[in-house]
Amino acid sequence: MSDTRTALLLVMDGVGDRLLPDRGNRTPLQIASTPNFDTLARQGQSALMNVIGPGITPGSDAAHLALFGYDPVETYPGRGPLEALGAGLDSKPGSVAFRSNFATVDDDFVVVDRRAGREFTEEEHAALQAAIDGMVIDDVKVHFVATVEHRGALVLEGPGLYADISEVDPHETGKRVLISKPLRPDAKKTADVVNKLMRQVHLKLRDLPINKDRVDRGLPPANAILVRGAGRHEEVASLEEKYHIRSAVIAGGALYIGTAKFVGMEHVTVEGQTGTIDTNFDNIAQKTIECVNSGYNYVFVHIKATDNASHDGNTDEKILAIERTDTMLGKIIDAVSDKIVIAVTGDHSTPLSTREHACDPVPIVFWSDFIRPDDVERFSEIDAAGGALHTIRGLDVMPLLLGYSGYIEKFGA
Amino acid sequence: MSDTRTALLLVMDGVGDRLLPDRGNRTPLQIASTPNFDTLARQGQSALMNVIGPGITPGSDAAHLALFGYDPVETYPGRGPLEALGAGLDSKPGSVAFRSNFATVDDDFVVVDRRAGREFTEEEHAALQAAIDGMVIDDVKVHFVATVEHRGALVLEGPGLYADISEVDPHETGKRVLISKPLRPDAKKTADVVNKLMRQVHLKLRDLPINKDRVDRGLPPANAILVRGAGRHEEVASLEEKYHIRSAVIAGGALYIGTAKFVGMEHVTVEGQTGTIDTNFDNIAQKTIECVNSGYNYVFVHIKATDNASHDGNTDEKILAIERTDTMLGKIIDAVSDKIVIAVTGDHSTPLSTREHACDPVPIVFWSDFIRPDDVERFSEIDAAGGALHTIRGLDVMPLLLGYSGYIEKFGA
Repeated sequence: MSDTRTALLLVMDGVGDRLLPDRGNRTPLQIASTPNFDTLARQGQSALMNVIGPGITPGSDAAHLALFGYDPVETYPGRGPLEALGAGLDSKPGSVAFRSNFATVDDDFVVVDRRAGREFTEEEHAALQAAIDGMVIDDVKVHFVATVEHRGALVLEGPGLYADISEVDPHETGKRVLISKPLRPDAKKTADVVNKLMRQVHLKLRDLPINKDRVDRGLPPANAILVRGAGRHEEVASLEEKYHIRSAVIAGGALYIGTAKFVGMEHVTVEGQTGTIDTNFDNIAQKTIECVNSGYNYVFVHIKATDNASHDGNTDEKILAIERTDTMLGKIIDAVSDKIVIAVTGDHSTPLSTREHACDPVPIVFWSDFIRPDDVERFSEIDAAGGALHTIRGLDVMPLLLGYSGYIEKFGA
Repeated sequence: MSDTRTALLLVMDGVGDRLLPDRGNRTPLQIASTPNFDTLARQGQSALMNVIGPGITPGSDAAHLALFGYDPVETYPGRGPLEALGAGLDSKPGSVAFRSNFATVDDDFVVVDRRAGREFTEEEHAALQAAIDGMVIDDVKVHFVATVEHRGALVLEGPGLYADISEVDPHETGKRVLISKPLRPDAKKTADVVNKLMRQVHLKLRDLPINKDRVDRGLPPANAILVRGAGRHEEVASLEEKYHIRSAVIAGGALYIGTAKFVGMEHVTVEGQTGTIDTNFDNIAQKTIECVNSGYNYVFVHIKATDNASHDGNTDEKILAIERTDTMLGKIIDAVSDKIVIAVTGDHSTPLSTREHACDPVPIVFWSDFIRPDDVERFSEIDAAGGALHTIRGLDVMPLLLGYSGYIEKFGA
């Protein structure tokens, strides 16, 4: 195509909110000083967005699938595969993936500590990972990675695996690890493999030197794992297959990286990027500019700090996270404004008053130096209601971004 | 879920209207004094709503199915089953139901009076009902109830029944009762049963003592029934199955009660509730408050008076009905504002100028003490166009109401 731009999707996780009675009945977006977002709003087109659908409270992973142009009702694989991909495991179509905890069990397989003390050294992570990764149960290969603290991700790779199995995690101490059962007949093999895995992992971990050391130091041994969030990785057409674009994800959280990789984005790492308010916004801006200049057709930038502050009920930190993201975006625009089409939005609302995801729609603004303006002057949940795009769904974002960026072919002649 | 509200849907039947040139080019909603609706509009979010779809004139029953979250294109069972349920008959999936008239026929089965004089005493109703209810035609059981004047509802219960049959009612006097024909092959049995039913009911009714009395008093005998509006009752998932909620209907008209019962609502009776302007608005308010306080998760309140006035072309009465409903809602809000999420709307427009249902969208406002406000200040067809929800469909109402009320689970993690 003749004139293409890089489509830039900037998502502030959980940014949508409700009126704060103790702050003049305004939302955090209304309170925050956001000169760059407001310039986009003034020059671009705003909307309110039901990310999944009216009244539906989005989970972050399903919400991002929608924002990437994938109907979550049809394509959501469960959290396991997305976390596994985000943790760097190579989950493939047909595999069944899980989130995992290191745990402490007694000789009767009763859970003593669901997190095995929570704290692990790098050496301990490495030893535990080496013991589990590469195991083979019948004809199923086990891939495992230890991630943060007691957490990890696990992938079962082999023929005939399905995710419809009951939980092994009793979710309480003092109870035995549960026997997984198939929830439909063809998942029997998977349940059997998971049950064998629980036992065999226990036998391998309990005699590890690092666990003897932990016991010597008065720490609970990581002598078992508890897996949960089973999901079967179903094949979806990648963004490249759908749109012939090269796409990148810049994110600090494993779930967002994993969801982006699930649809075929390349993970571009940024030094100092985390999921918190202390993430390195300057480096994110710099890397985004590099991606635009190096020919990526689509760049997804995810900021998690807004959601963390919301879940903590921390109004000041939410406002600060918004303002730092605004400053970051200003740097990107200064550098590459004539090469991009931008959408700025959230994946869902997380009201400070409830500290949980909510169904309230989020504002979104589309901007490029050629997109027609509307009457909206500020980027907020209240102002966006007057936008030219009215109400859209998450699934509309990708076509709008890629349409304006020049990557969607004319329909008809 | 932790924090839930009662979802309250208030429908004024046929409330939508057009500009009245003889009343300063305003609609009845604009003319009426509605301080409570206007408070909701000022504090909540408005929309215009195409109840079924743009340009589609809704029937009341199909409109309500949509408002209850059921796609009428897929689930509308025809008027018969809804009227039958509303009349108190126990229509079941697989049954075929009809609306029914008492009629007068001569010995050649020619219709002499399609309403058999229209007026009946309670004793006559009871005798006629007893004669028909419980009849058996082949392997089909007949359920029948006499309702108001010459009207009744009839249910055929048995295997292999379908509603695709031609009419028996010639809709004119001086013509013979028609022979019902199957409109598709598998409805042949149903047409045969209906034809036998017409004959056998005639034979049973013509010799009833109450009919001899009617003839003695110079009244036409009810010696036949004419059934119409055939519909097959197809099973739908109830509101409880879909959303795990306990729901109630507060309505005066059989069709609305029947449509609500079709989706699983419990009918809560209110002393003095009718379908007219003289309905007891105070008692409706009181019962609604009781339903909220006694733990119903969803309450549907239906006011019919607005539609009656519209069909009569009675502007003053339509305005009065709106104002009385507004006062009624004020009482509900005063009592339980912190326990509810409200939507106020109509099921369709019935312009006073045409006295018939029309495709013009209706206004709707959503309110709770936490829903974000928009710029709308009045509840009307004209003001609602500026609402933050823009244009919605009837099918969006249930997800929005239940989403804000806390009854829809998060999608994804």
